[in-house]
Amino acid sequence: MKLTILGCYAATPRTFTNPTSQILEIKNRLFLIDCGEGTQVQLRKNKIKFSKINHIFISHLHGDHFFGLIGLVSTFTLLNRTTDLHIYGPKGIKEIIKLQLRLANSWTNYGLFFHELESNESEIVYEDQKVTVKTIPLKHRVYTNGFLFQEKIDKKKLNIEAAQNYEIEECYYQNIKNGKDIVLDDGRIIENEKLTFDPAAPKSYAFCSDTVYNEDIIPVIDGVDVLYHEATFLQSEEALAAKTMHSTAKEAATIALKSNVKQLILGHYSTRYENIELFKEEAQTIFSEVLLADDGQSFDL
Amino acid sequence: MKLTILGCYAATPRTFTNPTSQILEIKNRLFLIDCGEGTQVQLRKNKIKFSKINHIFISHLHGDHFFGLIGLVSTFTLLNRTTDLHIYGPKGIKEIIKLQLRLANSWTNYGLFFHELESNESEIVYEDQKVTVKTIPLKHRVYTNGFLFQEKIDKKKLNIEAAQNYEIEECYYQNIKNGKDIVLDDGRIIENEKLTFDPAAPKSYAFCSDTVYNEDIIPVIDGVDVLYHEATFLQSEEALAAKTMHSTAKEAATIALKSNVKQLILGHYSTRYENIELFKEEAQTIFSEVLLADDGQSFDL
Repeated sequence: MKLTILGCYAATPRTFTNPTSQILEIKNRLFLIDCGEGTQVQLRKNKIKFSKINHIFISHLHGDHFFGLIGLVSTFTLLNRTTDLHIYGPKGIKEIIKLQLRLANSWTNYGLFFHELESNESEIVYEDQKVTVKTIPLKHRVYTNGFLFQEKIDKKKLNIEAAQNYEIEECYYQNIKNGKDIVLDDGRIIENEKLTFDPAAPKSYAFCSDTVYNEDIIPVIDGVDVLYHEATFLQSEEALAAKTMHSTAKEAATIALKSNVKQLILGHYSTRYENIELFKEEAQTIFSEVLLADDGQSFDL
Repeated sequence: MKLTILGCYAATPRTFTNPTSQILEIKNRLFLIDCGEGTQVQLRKNKIKFSKINHIFISHLHGDHFFGLIGLVSTFTLLNRTTDLHIYGPKGIKEIIKLQLRLANSWTNYGLFFHELESNESEIVYEDQKVTVKTIPLKHRVYTNGFLFQEKIDKKKLNIEAAQNYEIEECYYQNIKNGKDIVLDDGRIIENEKLTFDPAAPKSYAFCSDTVYNEDIIPVIDGVDVLYHEATFLQSEEALAAKTMHSTAKEAATIALKSNVKQLILGHYSTRYENIELFKEEAQTIFSEVLLADDGQSFDL
């Protein structure tokens, strides 16, 4: 699992900072999460293959999280994309994109599918053989979801050496991987755990931006490996955070602590702060495993 | 009159090139012409004061000419703008911007006025004491206008030395500037031309992008000082230019020649060409006074 931060600053694109967008690579899939203005340039700078992006998740319809979407959708057409593209986001996102395509007289030459979200309960919005994506209902000034990306549990891995020692024929290997015990010709039963290694523990990643401090999300994100939680402000601006329905670094760390996550990544810093290290220092007074997102940074998780 | 190119490449923003946007400074006014994705960052990089932009002219609703508009409109709000903003562009532009503001629950805290264009005849869309802006109907795949910016003729400048020589009292100076002759106390008539210098010739700038080769625009732009004309392709791609309703460098130069313009600036290059000098070479086979636009470049006109 690899997370690439394309942008992680609040409000507005600036000369050296970009609004929210990130790429999560999980089980060989590339998911684009949020798409602020300039995301397509950030994708180029970070050498992400446009053609590998088939699913885009938009948290909410504030500009710093989706103004780059229409440009990306249009560029896919210019790049002669033919693969379907799926967009998951708040109700209204379809109308915004389609209105602009209609007025430009420029329909996509690929399938464009919208999955509009309205529920205030966590729901599965994407699922395939290896990955599940659920919404994390957040509280912000407009309807907003975070997204929880979870690997499914892999099949057990075959212990070939053990299987060969028991002289088990290869045609039974798939059964072993599926967890079955094996009955040998002499009637002995070999328990599955003697023939397999446990699969790697499935990884999980939770993206939570933008949101006010909200303990309702704790059961949804409980125990995730990595939590990206917005920290627009420091605790000194606690009142402003509450008023604008954003979080402070301390609040983000409190959510991380109460959710038993393994790793917290902070982002969505207000551009009023010149030194983002202050966010880490503040968060670490509550929760030790804190990393700071920054534009162009990748995390191997 | 000063022209700053924020972006002048076709199709899609790339790591080192930007889609169409430019700032025309004329008679101390700043006009923004087109607003591709990333324009607000280009404004910052080029140290243009956001607060001085009160009028934005959008040629057409293809993304590389207006996808940056909603971001700029939103950033103006974040910057606590209070001055009215006027947007001139094709019918539909109001619906696009207002839909996104409504769904973001983020209305502007300044007056936002749309002047939607539908006419296929050149019309005055802006006029003040010193400047007039007219549309230049263009032919492209969607409804498109260029814009003609014209200074009005200044008042004559007082020749103070001459006025003092004739011992004319200062209370008559305004009449002189207004073009009147002066009758001295002894009855002699001093003709205005003896008391004044001619004002500087009014400057004019025509922006024509995007458009197929179209001689209909010649009467509208006849004799302008500076013509910015799109040259998406070289003549070797003449057929592609016609098909996509763009122009070649040679065609742009032909329009410049036939319109008796003083200076041609080329732009809107397809990103297929690595060496934009080829555009200049091709255009100069037809018309000698050719300059190449490039991102971040300023022209003192």
